[in-house]
Amino acid sequence: MKAAFSNVGLVSRRDSPEILDSVLAVRDCLVRQGVAVVFEDATARMLDGPTTQESPRAGLGDDCDLIIVVGGDGSLLGVGRDLAHAGVPILGINRGGLGFLADISPDQIDTRLPEVLAGEFSVEDHFLLDARVMRDGEAVGQSPALNDVVVHLGGMSRMMDFSLWVDGQFVYDQRSDGLIIASPTGSTAYSLSAGGPIMHPSLDAIVIVPMFPHTLTSRPLVVRGQSVIKVGIGETGAGDAQASCDSQVDFDLRAGDEVIIHKFKTPLRLIYPLGHSFFESCRSKLDWASRLGGRPPSV
Amino acid sequence: MKAAFSNVGLVSRRDSPEILDSVLAVRDCLVRQGVAVVFEDATARMLDGPTTQESPRAGLGDDCDLIIVVGGDGSLLGVGRDLAHAGVPILGINRGGLGFLADISPDQIDTRLPEVLAGEFSVEDHFLLDARVMRDGEAVGQSPALNDVVVHLGGMSRMMDFSLWVDGQFVYDQRSDGLIIASPTGSTAYSLSAGGPIMHPSLDAIVIVPMFPHTLTSRPLVVRGQSVIKVGIGETGAGDAQASCDSQVDFDLRAGDEVIIHKFKTPLRLIYPLGHSFFESCRSKLDWASRLGGRPPSV
Amino acid sequence: MKAAFSNVGLVSRRDSPEILDSVLAVRDCLVRQGVAVVFEDATARMLDGPTTQESPRAGLGDDCDLIIVVGGDGSLLGVGRDLAHAGVPILGINRGGLGFLADISPDQIDTRLPEVLAGEFSVEDHFLLDARVMRDGEAVGQSPALNDVVVHLGGMSRMMDFSLWVDGQFVYDQRSDGLIIASPTGSTAYSLSAGGPIMHPSLDAIVIVPMFPHTLTSRPLVVRGQSVIKVGIGETGAGDAQASCDSQVDFDLRAGDEVIIHKFKTPLRLIYPLGHSFFESCRSKLDWASRLGGRPPSV
Amino acid sequence: MKAAFSNVGLVSRRDSPEILDSVLAVRDCLVRQGVAVVFEDATARMLDGPTTQESPRAGLGDDCDLIIVVGGDGSLLGVGRDLAHAGVPILGINRGGLGFLADISPDQIDTRLPEVLAGEFSVEDHFLLDARVMRDGEAVGQSPALNDVVVHLGGMSRMMDFSLWVDGQFVYDQRSDGLIIASPTGSTAYSLSAGGPIMHPSLDAIVIVPMFPHTLTSRPLVVRGQSVIKVGIGETGAGDAQASCDSQVDFDLRAGDEVIIHKFKTPLRLIYPLGHSFFESCRSKLDWASRLGGRPPSV
Repeated sequence: MKAAFSNVGLVSRRDSPEILDSVLAVRDCLVRQGVAVVFEDATARMLDGPTTQESPRAGLGDDCDLIIVVGGDGSLLGVGRDLAHAGVPILGINRGGLGFLADISPDQIDTRLPEVLAGEFSVEDHFLLDARVMRDGEAVGQSPALNDVVVHLGGMSRMMDFSLWVDGQFVYDQRSDGLIIASPTGSTAYSLSAGGPIMHPSLDAIVIVPMFPHTLTSRPLVVRGQSVIKVGIGETGAGDAQASCDSQVDFDLRAGDEVIIHKFKTPLRLIYPLGHSFFESCRSKLDWASRLGGRPPSV
Repeated sequence: MKAAFSNVGLVSRRDSPEILDSVLAVRDCLVRQGVAVVFEDATARMLDGPTTQESPRAGLGDDCDLIIVVGGDGSLLGVGRDLAHAGVPILGINRGGLGFLADISPDQIDTRLPEVLAGEFSVEDHFLLDARVMRDGEAVGQSPALNDVVVHLGGMSRMMDFSLWVDGQFVYDQRSDGLIIASPTGSTAYSLSAGGPIMHPSLDAIVIVPMFPHTLTSRPLVVRGQSVIKVGIGETGAGDAQASCDSQVDFDLRAGDEVIIHKFKTPLRLIYPLGHSFFESCRSKLDWASRLGGRPPSV
Repeated sequence: MKAAFSNVGLVSRRDSPEILDSVLAVRDCLVRQGVAVVFEDATARMLDGPTTQESPRAGLGDDCDLIIVVGGDGSLLGVGRDLAHAGVPILGINRGGLGFLADISPDQIDTRLPEVLAGEFSVEDHFLLDARVMRDGEAVGQSPALNDVVVHLGGMSRMMDFSLWVDGQFVYDQRSDGLIIASPTGSTAYSLSAGGPIMHPSLDAIVIVPMFPHTLTSRPLVVRGQSVIKVGIGETGAGDAQASCDSQVDFDLRAGDEVIIHKFKTPLRLIYPLGHSFFESCRSKLDWASRLGGRPPSV
Repeated sequence: MKAAFSNVGLVSRRDSPEILDSVLAVRDCLVRQGVAVVFEDATARMLDGPTTQESPRAGLGDDCDLIIVVGGDGSLLGVGRDLAHAGVPILGINRGGLGFLADISPDQIDTRLPEVLAGEFSVEDHFLLDARVMRDGEAVGQSPALNDVVVHLGGMSRMMDFSLWVDGQFVYDQRSDGLIIASPTGSTAYSLSAGGPIMHPSLDAIVIVPMFPHTLTSRPLVVRGQSVIKVGIGETGAGDAQASCDSQVDFDLRAGDEVIIHKFKTPLRLIYPLGHSFFESCRSKLDWASRLGGRPPSV
């Protein structure tokens, strides 16, 4: 049987012996299936011996028809941002706990990975956001974000002023700690901590969540995925303000800057083993089984 | 100049002299513009003298190419449910406060209504939900809902058990006071009180909001507008459970019943004067200008 | 060694074989320690053979110097309300899961109960609320409540109007589904589902939590334990309104009624084995160990 | 008639002509009443001509039997922290909007201030918190706080780890943006934005509010005013962590530091004109009159 993928890129976090075990298990499994393995160069340095083939991360998109990321949702954020433009599908191996993005556990590598290679998988497109910082009519920073763009205070200030516009329409002026703009993928991450709703990954929508707003009536706002969101930075707190993509890429902001956020041109194409369920991830990760015990039936 | 509409239905709440003034002002304005007026029969009874033309509410959809509702968002809910299937556009006259649905104030009747009749208006489609109660394979109740379908306890019980399914996928079993399933239109109503997000009217999405869930990790969940939502009623509290459409149409529920909710076949087509802004309605109705005063700048 | 208690009342839920096992284990343990056992009469009927001594629940307060309740926090609510006035300490045996009130598990009966009888225990006073319904200057209903007094809609209505007063000072007029007034004990029950804070059992305070308020700025309000809270029932929804104590004792309300809530004259005196920690109960019951997984460290 | 106070200190923000008008109005009023005025030296520099008597802020506590602060709640925070130890009562003049602390408006100076001087006032003690940063057994920072002590990330990091202890009992380990520990006075400020309850000023309690916790079950926790709260700083994010008192005084934190918070030894003694009501301040500042409009009565 011919494998569904012939050149597979392999990227991993580099921080623990357990991760290394998973990387080796994935490599061995791929080799057994007759699939060519291309290591991200930084990942290759984790291994003692020589690797058949290496590539810088940026080149993996050209060389591979599947990229496997070992290390959980966090690693997938970075790879997703770096390689989303290439359109290569990505498969995540988690570190033991069910992830929203990385659905295969280390002990499932030998059973689920061959299934995926044999073509038994589902594809789920996750759109990214594109954040651009405009200053005097010029883009001074730009990055995709898979989870969220957070406009917030990075320093000592305790509040900032900004104005929010959606599709050219004024929404409000706000004084708060900042604003989280999240994709459906990011709706189960920082946005959820801040009171945002859970959005199904298939939803074409963006949520805007105020962070500790001075106005108690400010609530999470869900707009269409095609919307263009503009955050205009005011004077108060501007010196310490930042725009942060997935909490991993930061841009300093000044008063008068505009942060423009809209959908990124290409989605992240995620591969899941068959049977993947977003709601099962929710039940597992958000612990939907736990119940309050204090409100009992009558005696 | 020919009016954009030639036969206009007129429906009104029947509860105050001020409302009557607005009804007469609308009628006079329509007559001045050479438009034929068809009164809902119940509305006609508000007037002292004879009216040229009357129709039961159900017939207005056939006879008219525009229906004007006087009385605010609440009146629009009922007319919207009753006439959404007919596809006739609806224009709302509010009772003095800016509404999300009824955007023309009594004192704007003589200025804005002629503009609308002259073709200066925008159209906004608001989808309704369709709620069906299934028992032993049979539909025992059915109604559209413009704002929300609420599965809740109507009697003495203080909690109920149910299971939630979206598009055939199990979401969770829950013990709570109930569940609010809201359209974007309803997202600024009951759902908002219960912690749901604000959804832009143009968004093709449905929000599911748990009411006082025993599980602290249950959060509002936003799914696609095409989704089919199923709420299966469990034993606990079933005797007092109801499904309620817009808090205006109620169905009693029994253990084993399933409430099936999806998008209604035709949207409510709302007419707004030019310049209407959803966000302005939010700023006005949710008082987004108010600010907490207790967190001041330093001395 | 002389036991710390000589006459122990025994009360149990009557709903499962497991409960019966716990009741017998408690009885046998008490007999082994030379302590006289007085069964609540209803509990005695669970047993096949004759019991040495029985008493109606109301009489247990006179006959015993300790009352053991088998069955979890829910059973304790009822016994607490019924016997709080007697001042007899109460010890709870739960049904297997750690309770906020009942801290001894079935499998700990033979180890922890003798310790308690030997005087190794801590005492925690939990104050109850006293709810009185006033109509035309007369009390038409009255009950203590250990967890909460809930003024709410018991029927078909979807909102009610009421005014809130604390210590004679007007707080607000509100339109909502109702109001939860909870003791610290109740702060981890229904009140928590509605967004109320967790209050330490030793705190002398009462929390007032609005239920789905129309005003987004209404928030949980914590007042002193000595405060007198008055809820004046308005016209809207009054026919379906109720005051409910611990969701177990209900009073119908009419427009014009006033519900007066203040601290009950005697507290519930709870006995815990040594080492009891409220925060450990929180960690266990509220699952404070669970973490959101979606916000990861950088690659 | 003898005035209730004979030496009155006068402190003001220094940022606007309107403020200066209020300062002069207060001075003139005091002089008319035969009361000696002592200007804070920095405040004196606002005035063009010479002032009879000046003192550094720290000395006002010794020289005066009342201190008047012009400038709103924010100014009162600073003066309260600086002079709370002295036990001198403080009266606040706001900048036009009702304050929680400063209850006299500029246009009421000539009517309400003489009343206060004539002895017609109420006194409300507001306790402060005392925050101490311990490192290797030594206090490396210490400050009172009237509103709140916030342990938070001041820099680029997006989350921190810490452990919380109350009265020597372990509460939880948490990963979040930080923790707000607020007095009743601070419960209507930052804490409220973060979901904390409103606490009546007379309540002897402290609230602990998690900031965007990863654990969805973490909720505001209210403990007794006498409690000792300890926050132990973990490794993650420690380099950017700070303890901040009233968002005005900051201390850098390191991994291993402990922030100890308890009640400050002396309360801030606030003077209000007769008729002051905390709930009226809530209604005004939190806009409790506003109502959601989207949930209407039936047609």
